[in-house]
Amino acid sequence: MPRWESGSAERLTRIAMELFAEKGFEETSVVEIAKRARVTTRTFFRYFPDKREVLFAESDGLRAALVERIRQAPDDEPLAVVLGALAGFDWDTLGREAQRQRHAVIAANPELLERDLSKQNDIAVAFTDALQQRGVDAAVARLTSRVGLQVFGVAYERWLSAGDADLAGIVAETMALLSRTASARAG
Amino acid sequence: MPRWESGSAERLTRIAMELFAEKGFEETSVVEIAKRARVTTRTFFRYFPDKREVLFAESDGLRAALVERIRQAPDDEPLAVVLGALAGFDWDTLGREAQRQRHAVIAANPELLERDLSKQNDIAVAFTDALQQRGVDAAVARLTSRVGLQVFGVAYERWLSAGDADLAGIVAETMALLSRTASARAG
Repeated sequence: MPRWESGSAERLTRIAMELFAEKGFEETSVVEIAKRARVTTRTFFRYFPDKREVLFAESDGLRAALVERIRQAPDDEPLAVVLGALAGFDWDTLGREAQRQRHAVIAANPELLERDLSKQNDIAVAFTDALQQRGVDAAVARLTSRVGLQVFGVAYERWLSAGDADLAGIVAETMALLSRTASARAG
Repeated sequence: MPRWESGSAERLTRIAMELFAEKGFEETSVVEIAKRARVTTRTFFRYFPDKREVLFAESDGLRAALVERIRQAPDDEPLAVVLGALAGFDWDTLGREAQRQRHAVIAANPELLERDLSKQNDIAVAFTDALQQRGVDAAVARLTSRVGLQVFGVAYERWLSAGDADLAGIVAETMALLSRTASARAG
């Protein structure tokens, strides 16, 4: 079961996010997080090795879930497989407000941003492998994984700031924008 | 004048790269680099704050040169402007063998890879700004900067390992691969 569904880690994450949003990531200590959550710091450290991992604890699980979606995807163009896996994932289960807060905290801290970019790169590498296992040519797998993640990333940020718009719709719109400029280039 | 054209920094970089390639980045000390270069460590530190900066000292200059190419580009589709700026830059002036070594050192070290991803992200942000200053819509600027950099990155890696093939040709081929899968998705 992913940690965000289990009581205390989910609560600690929510409370840490509140504090990060209020005071900034660097200015928030584990002691403060534990205090507001009314647990000991020892309880905090049972769930997270440090405060940074509050933001990245789910990365491995998320990557595995997305890769599994690539493996299970119906036969289609590689870019459609990548975008389908990303857009079809139920991001709302992670909580949109929580994702918005997480995104803002990461964007405001260069060290966290570096770590986040590295996690995105891990996803690109895993997608490339999964596509190759589906028989996609290595260069195409690499290209469509990386481009697909960028298209999704742009759409995802719009979704985070877009009230209640539908993510799949925004992904399709973003992809249409790219197709227009990509085919103009090829033509 | 960029540092890679000035005597000692260029020599120190070349020697550091040799050592990184021979022994690994982590196992190479500034003392060893200085020793092989027959200079004092003080001379090394006149050029670089630490050994990691040997790999990234040119990042700001490179980004500025590429952004300037975007600013000066003839009117065209945004993705063509981005790819044109990247593919038309004279990468050979940086030395292909030096770039190959640099790429291998970075790929072998997660901390360096994080830093490199962060520098790429800085380029994407700067390209987005430069495109918007050319009147490109914000979402399109963001999307084409990020996608263009990925297309170029895939092409660049092929170029590094491709003997003496022409980079502009590989970029065009890579873009054609993307156009096929992108239009299949849109169609």
